[in-house]
Amino acid sequence: MSELTYPAGKLKDFAYEIFSKIGCSDTDASLAAEVLLSADRRGIDSHGIARLSGYVRLWEAGRLNPTPNVRVVHETPSTAVVDGDRGLGLVVAPRAMEIAISKAAAVGSGWVSVKNSNHFGIAGYHAMMALKSDMIGMAMTNASPLVAPTFSLDRLLGTNPIAVAIPAGEEPPFVADMATTTAANGKLEILQREGRPAPLGWVQDKMGRASTNPHELKGGGALLPLGSDYDHGSHKGYCLGAVVDIFSAVLSGANYGPWVPPFVAFLSPPADPVGEGIGHFLGAMRVDAFRPADTFKRHMDNWIRRFRSSTPAEGHDRVMIPGDPERESEVYRKQNGIPVNPKVFEDLKELAKRFDISGLV
Amino acid sequence: MSELTYPAGKLKDFAYEIFSKIGCSDTDASLAAEVLLSADRRGIDSHGIARLSGYVRLWEAGRLNPTPNVRVVHETPSTAVVDGDRGLGLVVAPRAMEIAISKAAAVGSGWVSVKNSNHFGIAGYHAMMALKSDMIGMAMTNASPLVAPTFSLDRLLGTNPIAVAIPAGEEPPFVADMATTTAANGKLEILQREGRPAPLGWVQDKMGRASTNPHELKGGGALLPLGSDYDHGSHKGYCLGAVVDIFSAVLSGANYGPWVPPFVAFLSPPADPVGEGIGHFLGAMRVDAFRPADTFKRHMDNWIRRFRSSTPAEGHDRVMIPGDPERESEVYRKQNGIPVNPKVFEDLKELAKRFDISGLV
Repeated sequence: MSELTYPAGKLKDFAYEIFSKIGCSDTDASLAAEVLLSADRRGIDSHGIARLSGYVRLWEAGRLNPTPNVRVVHETPSTAVVDGDRGLGLVVAPRAMEIAISKAAAVGSGWVSVKNSNHFGIAGYHAMMALKSDMIGMAMTNASPLVAPTFSLDRLLGTNPIAVAIPAGEEPPFVADMATTTAANGKLEILQREGRPAPLGWVQDKMGRASTNPHELKGGGALLPLGSDYDHGSHKGYCLGAVVDIFSAVLSGANYGPWVPPFVAFLSPPADPVGEGIGHFLGAMRVDAFRPADTFKRHMDNWIRRFRSSTPAEGHDRVMIPGDPERESEVYRKQNGIPVNPKVFEDLKELAKRFDISGLV
Repeated sequence: MSELTYPAGKLKDFAYEIFSKIGCSDTDASLAAEVLLSADRRGIDSHGIARLSGYVRLWEAGRLNPTPNVRVVHETPSTAVVDGDRGLGLVVAPRAMEIAISKAAAVGSGWVSVKNSNHFGIAGYHAMMALKSDMIGMAMTNASPLVAPTFSLDRLLGTNPIAVAIPAGEEPPFVADMATTTAANGKLEILQREGRPAPLGWVQDKMGRASTNPHELKGGGALLPLGSDYDHGSHKGYCLGAVVDIFSAVLSGANYGPWVPPFVAFLSPPADPVGEGIGHFLGAMRVDAFRPADTFKRHMDNWIRRFRSSTPAEGHDRVMIPGDPERESEVYRKQNGIPVNPKVFEDLKELAKRFDISGLV
């Protein structure tokens, strides 16, 4: 099956209509659609329009509030806890990031832990919000438990991503956006669709043995923390995923570890929650809270140029800096459109029919 | 050769005397000795008494100021830049961490970037300083360039560790302390001494090819970022090491990337520095800047117990939480003493002779 391709704007309009139909305000529907499509533009297909039907199913299951009262429930000059009121993470996280940014404007840095939210799209979007104010942005979130800590059979952590965005001067910004696992779940899904094996080190089977079967999670297996196995530092990936979980949920009062409610609506949340919804952690630091912004940006340019000009290894033509692949995808897809997988296209057709809106065809 | 063993207190007294002899104040010599020995107690032999002669050689080379004027050069309510005045990192970092802690006490969080410092011992020591005030502590530092970014032949990053310490209630604290490489350089040194090969994924040769030769760095090879290769997420380890480098040095005005001066005194610092000394980044967040400390600690206890009670994989009897191995080393070595490698023992004997102090025998 060949893939269909649409301009990002058309997919965004479609997402906007769907979010409106489930009851979001104009502002929220527009923001949610923008965050969602930013993933497709940046080439992270697993977190974009492909998830639209998942959000709708969460709403159908009564697990998503389309008109949340997102509010600060505790704060100091540089910190806050935000209650997302079961809203779309796509909307809750940018609101929380705005609070982090305004605290950073006032006292140098701002750190916001969020409870009672759900999937927030790509972490990078929220981190990058800080760039326009000459700030460093950070974003992380916990997620459904699919990852086994080192030497564990139980799945206790999500793919718990970390994003860090750092402004530069003449060069584009440094943008890292990474799951704390060896491979994100979206990469496994691609192999499943293509019927190809996974590299050793991505998953373990239900006995904790290394496996190349991309379907292993359905049989009680687990994704592995960054590092793959103990000899290659999987305890470090486990540490990182755990820090994301604690900052996002133990600090805020969200569910953590194996209590994180699943994104998919056909699985029920745990019956014994330890908090509310899922959690995020967002941060902003003003660059000029450390040194003059111009000086910082000049050195960032120098950093970026030095790393880009590194001698590439055999078989490679260049060394990239974090954010380069996603920027290239943005340029390419702006010209060539966003490919929509046939399975996703069927989902979207169904949504169009169900909500009686004009589809994509 | 069998290893000699000494009580930590005796080694600490010895280090204190040496730091005093090179001109440190009583307070500084005592603090430096304590930070150094905390590594040996926690089982991180590469960063403890084994490095004492290295600091002395830096002093001999005129690259270490024993009486630094450690001072804040820029600040906001929640951030600061500290100039370490070429002091011992072992002393500069705890001073900077105290500043982060007092800012957190005042406005919820404190973040300090440090320039003009040198090797600060184990990152975990500084992060753990926050625990006694019911704060989360973070510490990172850049280091001599030994690590090649993904697809690079040039060594542009250090092993750039990240430590995060999080208080709990009845349970011991969560303490992650990790190099952002697959394996720290200290682990390679052990294999070199024992004449054993390294697992594939720790180092590359000068052409960027996977290698098991633990001596590869001497021939132009490099350590690999956490993840080992692109298929296993080495670009993520590269991102992490880069963030540590930027937070520690581009924010503060220290040297970054390949310009970081080497710890070993027989190598000269780059002739074209881009900053002053090496850089650190230290942070503290008050737990009750987010939610009541008692509630937070009760949930941390629950988190820790759930992870500890996870079903272990075949061949393993338990799942650990970050900090467990180091705590067990502390207990064991308190009873059984600190093993001193024969090569290190020769170094210490030479120091004793040279500074005319009573040795360890």
